[in-house]
Amino acid sequence: MSRIRLGMVGGGAGAFIGAVHRIAARLDDRYELVAGAFSSTADKSKASGAELGIDEKRCYGDFTEMAKREARLKDGIEAVAIVTPNHVHYPAAREFLKRGIHVICDKPLTSTLPDAKKLVKVAGKSDALFVLTHNYTGYPMVRQARDMVASGALGKIRVVQVEYPQDWLTEAAETEGLKQAEWRTDPERSGAGGCVGDIGTHAYNLAGFVTGLEAESLAADLHTFVEGRRLDDNVHVLLRYAGGARGMLWSSQVAPGNENALRLRVYGETGGLEWAQEDPNYLWHTPFGEPKCKLTRGGAGFTETTGSRIPPGHPEGYLEGFANLYDQAADLIVAHRDGKTPAHLLPTVEDGLKGVQFIDACVRSSRRNAAWVDL
Amino acid sequence: MSRIRLGMVGGGAGAFIGAVHRIAARLDDRYELVAGAFSSTADKSKASGAELGIDEKRCYGDFTEMAKREARLKDGIEAVAIVTPNHVHYPAAREFLKRGIHVICDKPLTSTLPDAKKLVKVAGKSDALFVLTHNYTGYPMVRQARDMVASGALGKIRVVQVEYPQDWLTEAAETEGLKQAEWRTDPERSGAGGCVGDIGTHAYNLAGFVTGLEAESLAADLHTFVEGRRLDDNVHVLLRYAGGARGMLWSSQVAPGNENALRLRVYGETGGLEWAQEDPNYLWHTPFGEPKCKLTRGGAGFTETTGSRIPPGHPEGYLEGFANLYDQAADLIVAHRDGKTPAHLLPTVEDGLKGVQFIDACVRSSRRNAAWVDL
Amino acid sequence: MSRIRLGMVGGGAGAFIGAVHRIAARLDDRYELVAGAFSSTADKSKASGAELGIDEKRCYGDFTEMAKREARLKDGIEAVAIVTPNHVHYPAAREFLKRGIHVICDKPLTSTLPDAKKLVKVAGKSDALFVLTHNYTGYPMVRQARDMVASGALGKIRVVQVEYPQDWLTEAAETEGLKQAEWRTDPERSGAGGCVGDIGTHAYNLAGFVTGLEAESLAADLHTFVEGRRLDDNVHVLLRYAGGARGMLWSSQVAPGNENALRLRVYGETGGLEWAQEDPNYLWHTPFGEPKCKLTRGGAGFTETTGSRIPPGHPEGYLEGFANLYDQAADLIVAHRDGKTPAHLLPTVEDGLKGVQFIDACVRSSRRNAAWVDL
Amino acid sequence: MSRIRLGMVGGGAGAFIGAVHRIAARLDDRYELVAGAFSSTADKSKASGAELGIDEKRCYGDFTEMAKREARLKDGIEAVAIVTPNHVHYPAAREFLKRGIHVICDKPLTSTLPDAKKLVKVAGKSDALFVLTHNYTGYPMVRQARDMVASGALGKIRVVQVEYPQDWLTEAAETEGLKQAEWRTDPERSGAGGCVGDIGTHAYNLAGFVTGLEAESLAADLHTFVEGRRLDDNVHVLLRYAGGARGMLWSSQVAPGNENALRLRVYGETGGLEWAQEDPNYLWHTPFGEPKCKLTRGGAGFTETTGSRIPPGHPEGYLEGFANLYDQAADLIVAHRDGKTPAHLLPTVEDGLKGVQFIDACVRSSRRNAAWVDL
Repeated sequence: MSRIRLGMVGGGAGAFIGAVHRIAARLDDRYELVAGAFSSTADKSKASGAELGIDEKRCYGDFTEMAKREARLKDGIEAVAIVTPNHVHYPAAREFLKRGIHVICDKPLTSTLPDAKKLVKVAGKSDALFVLTHNYTGYPMVRQARDMVASGALGKIRVVQVEYPQDWLTEAAETEGLKQAEWRTDPERSGAGGCVGDIGTHAYNLAGFVTGLEAESLAADLHTFVEGRRLDDNVHVLLRYAGGARGMLWSSQVAPGNENALRLRVYGETGGLEWAQEDPNYLWHTPFGEPKCKLTRGGAGFTETTGSRIPPGHPEGYLEGFANLYDQAADLIVAHRDGKTPAHLLPTVEDGLKGVQFIDACVRSSRRNAAWVDL
Repeated sequence: MSRIRLGMVGGGAGAFIGAVHRIAARLDDRYELVAGAFSSTADKSKASGAELGIDEKRCYGDFTEMAKREARLKDGIEAVAIVTPNHVHYPAAREFLKRGIHVICDKPLTSTLPDAKKLVKVAGKSDALFVLTHNYTGYPMVRQARDMVASGALGKIRVVQVEYPQDWLTEAAETEGLKQAEWRTDPERSGAGGCVGDIGTHAYNLAGFVTGLEAESLAADLHTFVEGRRLDDNVHVLLRYAGGARGMLWSSQVAPGNENALRLRVYGETGGLEWAQEDPNYLWHTPFGEPKCKLTRGGAGFTETTGSRIPPGHPEGYLEGFANLYDQAADLIVAHRDGKTPAHLLPTVEDGLKGVQFIDACVRSSRRNAAWVDL
Repeated sequence: MSRIRLGMVGGGAGAFIGAVHRIAARLDDRYELVAGAFSSTADKSKASGAELGIDEKRCYGDFTEMAKREARLKDGIEAVAIVTPNHVHYPAAREFLKRGIHVICDKPLTSTLPDAKKLVKVAGKSDALFVLTHNYTGYPMVRQARDMVASGALGKIRVVQVEYPQDWLTEAAETEGLKQAEWRTDPERSGAGGCVGDIGTHAYNLAGFVTGLEAESLAADLHTFVEGRRLDDNVHVLLRYAGGARGMLWSSQVAPGNENALRLRVYGETGGLEWAQEDPNYLWHTPFGEPKCKLTRGGAGFTETTGSRIPPGHPEGYLEGFANLYDQAADLIVAHRDGKTPAHLLPTVEDGLKGVQFIDACVRSSRRNAAWVDL
Repeated sequence: MSRIRLGMVGGGAGAFIGAVHRIAARLDDRYELVAGAFSSTADKSKASGAELGIDEKRCYGDFTEMAKREARLKDGIEAVAIVTPNHVHYPAAREFLKRGIHVICDKPLTSTLPDAKKLVKVAGKSDALFVLTHNYTGYPMVRQARDMVASGALGKIRVVQVEYPQDWLTEAAETEGLKQAEWRTDPERSGAGGCVGDIGTHAYNLAGFVTGLEAESLAADLHTFVEGRRLDDNVHVLLRYAGGARGMLWSSQVAPGNENALRLRVYGETGGLEWAQEDPNYLWHTPFGEPKCKLTRGGAGFTETTGSRIPPGHPEGYLEGFANLYDQAADLIVAHRDGKTPAHLLPTVEDGLKGVQFIDACVRSSRRNAAWVDL
């Protein structure tokens, strides 16, 4: 067993998602964090690196420098986690991909549609792997749901209801020094979508992951409720999927009483499924004409074989779901050493492009009074 | 105490909603059912009446005959419950209203918009009262929610999420001899809206009742999933309310695992509320920045003073909520004897018109590819 | 259809359970309340009767007078509901039973064990029916649970966990003018058991009703937490059933956050069942080795055919469950007119005796430091 | 930052709890696993160690040899995790403690009461730390509950209801080759308590941890339902606490529909708390006379400052709670290097003794027909 040498771009002191990636990478003991451009200056980066026990020489102030040097080192990083604000995803990913270093990148893929398309190309030319951390797809019961839909347990899908409400931006937190709120409501760093880019994409991705359906068109009513906010904070979308299914997506950052209430409901000709992120170890299944059943992670009826570490009734959470992506990315990286490319369920750069296309379509539709637009 | 003499149009053997109205009228002992045109022939009507202990002479085969004769009787009915399929509401209500007999009518108001407008006029000219049984507004926790919104507990309302999914029409039940399914999917008897008229109106009415908001425009994507069905069975609507709130409404009859899952969530600048019809004794309130609280009917924090008969923790249900409308209608009828018209919360003929306008707007929007239309 | 002529003892102005009995009797329209000894003086009784629309001549100040006179009237009452404090149950029931008037009596059967035994004898000698309103047995999902156990769905029963916590006596409400609290904490009127008699008996009865098991012995730790209170307010009981099952019963009136949280869980060799009174339309069933399923009143898998008036998803509550007892008592009374005695599930005078024996055993055990005592 | 060098006794291939300890130790990156006696032979131990990336030289077949050699190594382990069946806890812990190596030991403390007492003495004489992994105390909402009780939010505690039902031993799994089931039902390896030792102790410890109360006496009805099983599989206990609180404890391994349904409810003079392990991110609080509130990990009203890694609404689970113990043990170990002994909430060897005394008392009581015995 030798652990994969991992670097990180972003994730300096005080950042939320960087710490999450580090725990996720560590949970199954398959990575070793050895380098990073944790902040935008070398000093800050070294300070963050020191707290993490990273050799000072491998703490960089600049992702390009990091990519160049690490690519030349004998024991340089094999993979890098990119956990910056959205607008840095593309330029950073590009530097590593073109040097053959695998990229594990936070979502959304990029802050603009052109960047996303360029990144698809760069990734296509690279031998290195690209994994997008739409982490909710790593929850075992989400995988279970996907398996059940794919196996026909619901029959042909008719209706998809997905939502992701939060309440943390109910007031103008971005004017009160909350760093998370600042960049997530800043079009320069987040892109043209606010709530829709931050969490609407998660909802959209989750619905597609579980159902296997592709949206063809949508009508989106984006709205900003908090005065002075520069991006949308509430998102209402109607969806039409290829094959005839209809969907509804709601995401909001101004819905008091909702923390991270991502919830998916899927209804087909012969059954329904319901899953909620805040209680992720359960999946509710109703075969039409039978009682509703509660499937549990690892419990009776659970057929998904990956990503469940402990027995049923002992809950796994967000970090374990996230870690499943890292664990499976490690499988790919190890296989890649041997020139193999096994099948997998990890979100790809193409999935990332779809997410950015979704954001773009929502913004376009909303600007045209929520008219229907194609994806 | 003298009980109000009540008649009924519709509600013969095997009908669902007629029996509900009778129990609701009886629960608080303020009505006595003494006459009816229970079915479309005199014989059937008498058979139904006999089971109900109604004097044969007051069992009619025709609502016009009933209205005429009862209006002339010294102890004729003071009020009539109309519980027929939708297309009969208008002609029946007209006959009673013009003779000064109070009308308690099931929803939707009528099967067509012109009928609804005519009924508003007829009711306006009549001295008699008109009550529409949007029964979900009778639940004590719905009243509590309305009071809280009105008192400013949520601040200005921003987002309204309302839904009413069912699953009983997942398959083509209307072709298998189910009477309920037959008329509810028949445009001749139900009007141009199927699911949207049957339960979408309930959801729409509930959202308006609780928030006090008026919708200005909507975009509706109605769809029929079951082959051969003549009316919509799934309804997706975006709403824009006067004052700037945005809403989403979903109703469906093809969502396996949902029985009568009417659910309302309202979010304002300072708080959120959640209520679900299947667990109607609870109301969840989150003041922004505080924990979510569970208000119970009759429990701590419950300020609504009407319509709760038994202590908290002993659940009341659908019939009690329905009975609250009858009980309060009885208050109005008794006051009317004295020439008084007290304030009340009962759904009016104007609310009924709004419901039919909602159905009409949804159908219009949907025919234009879910374009925005005004209400 | 002719309605059964019903009288009432107790249930004057301000009483809780009297009003419940009246609604329950009225719900299915099979009774007519025509007489009563509503209070302990004729004047108060007439005042209460007047509010209920009862002929003044049939409002009595004394149950003996009422029994005597009604027995002689041509259209005298056929049945009487006894809804007084516990110590009046026996003397009142006796007067009616010995005159052939059916008795529907609130629980517990009596305030003392000798009274209970005498009442069993009196009832045995009478031709009239005796029904005890252990109303929770009237809930359709409780009946469903009983059917499932009886049909072997759980295999041989091993463990019974039943509880009934409340919080309304957390403070000394009996010293603050709350009439309900006064008599329920008064040994003269309630008997030797406080919480154990008021709600512990409900829990005990429910467990026996669903499982069909007879308790053989118990160890009870009764305790009074509120200073100055004269009866127990918290009850902990271990149970051993004939056949080897073991049980645990908790009832409390000092458990903040519990309204009427009666809950039963039954586990057998091949499955488990869970039911909660505050959400009474659901029954959770787990066949061992399969997922947990949610059965709903009237929904898929519901096999109980009585006592469900409206479709699944439209909740019925406490009053409907209570009314089921009245409805089925009406069946018995009607059959009795014809000399028939059909099978039924209504709680009998013998069930009432068991309840009083349970109270007595708990008090005996508790006085001996919670030693095991036989039932 | 230098990581603590950790060894492990037990936890070879196929063991459940060893893997849990390893993840818990790794989660916050404060330990490095460098040695182990993973199995009872050197060969098996080396095989397990190889899978874990441990130097072959530091894989031992014997905990005594390991303790001796590691104590002499310059970079020998500073701490050892003992994750064997119960009967090995004492002899293994002794060898490390007497050589000054900190011990992190799984529960229950030992398989016999004499061993437990000896271990307390050994730990008392050692300079090294001893931490018992009653891991449920590591959940943030359990800590929150403890803080609230300690701060007087519930007033004086009256009633404690704790339970831990499972269903995995509903059938005789120990005869079907399930290793977990074998040793946990074997008195040689588990001690005199089966279910009571395995999970009853968790429930007992949790109640004491949250309330701060000490049980003085108990009456226990242990029972074995599965034929041929050598230890109890269902546990019913009445508890009396110093100061007058009363409690009830149920644990079971034969309750179908329960996975790891540990649940604690505490009621005091002014409020109640409820917590359930399967949904560990919530804590329900009812101040008497106010609505029930849902506190969430990291959400509004959450005052516990340790052990919450990610924002509210992103669930943490069993592994994170377990990791909190390791993280805080690391704090102690680091402080110990400097000769400091900070205050902490970690379960101690004395807590472990209490757990074994609880098991012993339950067995004693049960053998005397569930008579009351002192603790």
